[in-house]
Amino acid sequence: MKRISEIDSKPILAITMGDPAGIGPEIAAKYLAHPHVNEKSWPLLVGNTAIMKKAFELIGVSLKLNSINEVSAATFQKGVVNVLEVSTEDAERIEYGQVSEVAGDLAFRSVTKAIGLALNNEVAGTVTGPIHKESLNKAGHKFAGHTEIFAHYTKVRKFAMLLVEENFKVIHVSTHVSLRQACDLVKKERVLEVIHLINDGLKRLGINQPRIGVAGLNPHASDGGLFGNEDADEILPAVEQAKREGVIADGPIPPDTLFAMAYGGKYDGCVAMYHDQGHIPFKVIGFNWDQETKKMKSVKGVNITLGLPIIRTSVDHGTAFEIAGKGIASPDALFHAVEYAEKLIN
Amino acid sequence: MKRISEIDSKPILAITMGDPAGIGPEIAAKYLAHPHVNEKSWPLLVGNTAIMKKAFELIGVSLKLNSINEVSAATFQKGVVNVLEVSTEDAERIEYGQVSEVAGDLAFRSVTKAIGLALNNEVAGTVTGPIHKESLNKAGHKFAGHTEIFAHYTKVRKFAMLLVEENFKVIHVSTHVSLRQACDLVKKERVLEVIHLINDGLKRLGINQPRIGVAGLNPHASDGGLFGNEDADEILPAVEQAKREGVIADGPIPPDTLFAMAYGGKYDGCVAMYHDQGHIPFKVIGFNWDQETKKMKSVKGVNITLGLPIIRTSVDHGTAFEIAGKGIASPDALFHAVEYAEKLIN
Repeated sequence: MKRISEIDSKPILAITMGDPAGIGPEIAAKYLAHPHVNEKSWPLLVGNTAIMKKAFELIGVSLKLNSINEVSAATFQKGVVNVLEVSTEDAERIEYGQVSEVAGDLAFRSVTKAIGLALNNEVAGTVTGPIHKESLNKAGHKFAGHTEIFAHYTKVRKFAMLLVEENFKVIHVSTHVSLRQACDLVKKERVLEVIHLINDGLKRLGINQPRIGVAGLNPHASDGGLFGNEDADEILPAVEQAKREGVIADGPIPPDTLFAMAYGGKYDGCVAMYHDQGHIPFKVIGFNWDQETKKMKSVKGVNITLGLPIIRTSVDHGTAFEIAGKGIASPDALFHAVEYAEKLIN
Repeated sequence: MKRISEIDSKPILAITMGDPAGIGPEIAAKYLAHPHVNEKSWPLLVGNTAIMKKAFELIGVSLKLNSINEVSAATFQKGVVNVLEVSTEDAERIEYGQVSEVAGDLAFRSVTKAIGLALNNEVAGTVTGPIHKESLNKAGHKFAGHTEIFAHYTKVRKFAMLLVEENFKVIHVSTHVSLRQACDLVKKERVLEVIHLINDGLKRLGINQPRIGVAGLNPHASDGGLFGNEDADEILPAVEQAKREGVIADGPIPPDTLFAMAYGGKYDGCVAMYHDQGHIPFKVIGFNWDQETKKMKSVKGVNITLGLPIIRTSVDHGTAFEIAGKGIASPDALFHAVEYAEKLIN
């Protein structure tokens, strides 16, 4: 049962503000202040009211902030921003661009509160703003990132990170582990699991018969066994099993051609065997470095955790400490993340 | 002393025809038939005259083929194609798109002959057409590819593969080994060697003060030691040593942002820690898949072996057996490979 607002049947999305020292609050403010924000869902900002007030001031927009402690207290109407309060007595001590325990803890509690709301069906899904791992760890929360926090608090073991651009989607067999450990994690059962996760995920995103390209692990997908045996021993059997189970899958495909072909339209989704195998092409395609300003001038891309009992999408960029508090950060990725959460709900 | 033609002081470039069952001969024919072919260098085709005759017929161009056994017998003038003969009695048995011992042996002997010419200073450099490893191996030549053949016959141990696009250049610490072995090969001494190889190579290509971005091995370049220790123990000391030796180098940089930044202009060249780390972004940028024809519609990119006592550039695409003999293959990459060989000579 998905909780929907009683006013007009639009789903409620919990949006976390991210690390308050980063660009999360200001991109959330830009999103919430946008005229089309309420068209398909009602946003519920999960975070700190004082921080969000400052973010709205930063972008020069005045909206009524409705600070609440329960979803039931929300007022869903245009011009009102409902902030489900994550309280602190130290909000004023947080400085833009600074790693701190206070900021890390506030970011963390915003995330766990959003997870709780989704597990309780009080919201239809969650969209997360960027957090800073160092601050998180400083506050005593030892997680590699959002994905791991969501998996932990929803008690899920079979999950994977999907990165999404309009025409390029890639899921990962492993993420935040060393490359050596990533090699160890390429096992038939896990590869098969991830093929199914992306196949099901793409169907939920509206692709009826997803074509899945599965990467090899080694150069040239081992070149007939010359370089490594994981392609033949682990990946090929997983692809064959997936096909028997009705998935349209190819592989193992030489990694250096798979992503170029997928980007050109040959596959709806790719399975990457390790973090950088998927992240490198994803960022080459979606991140644009501007040599004049020495900054990424556009950062597209949405990060979706598949395999959870709840919906979670996220911006795929970081806290961008170097530009936090300047009001110049682009909210584009947050718009996309919301859009994908809405697609997954429908 | 680099051999140049006695007529007009233009350097002679040995161009190998590649595997005769692939697109090598026809792209060479397209190159040789081009009106601007002789502007900066004189091509000397190293291969088989019967095969090249067929290739010229295929593309519908009639040029005089001057079959010779010594460079000194070449006639460097427009309208004449000098073919340094690599003989076989079985040329007629070769079929387009088929793996065979005859084709593999012919391709191999074309390469070793070109290497010999360059070592003897009979030509100023070599440009190689695509070979097929299976045919090569079937003919008893157990090499992973051109790079290894060149290193073996020039007796060189410190070499590396540089992939080049106009604004994106990446060199590799290792290439044709398993990903596990690639992790083992990330050693300070080798990383430093490869930083110097690309630094020197970029200078030879006309970049006076190359800015080098060095990739990490692990996700997020180990994220402060959380995932693996090679970034701190091997790569960082190599980068620091390179800086002390006058190289403008950064690193280890998280692999997923390095290549996006380099593509945007932040670095003149990248150092990749393993084959796919460099090849994936390179092909996403330079190879364009055409979903209508189900083929790569354009394949740019040049492969240069750095560290050799001779010049060697190459097309970076394969034999494309599926379209060989149709006359539709693009010679663009060969033009670029010749252009880079000419730059390296000057």
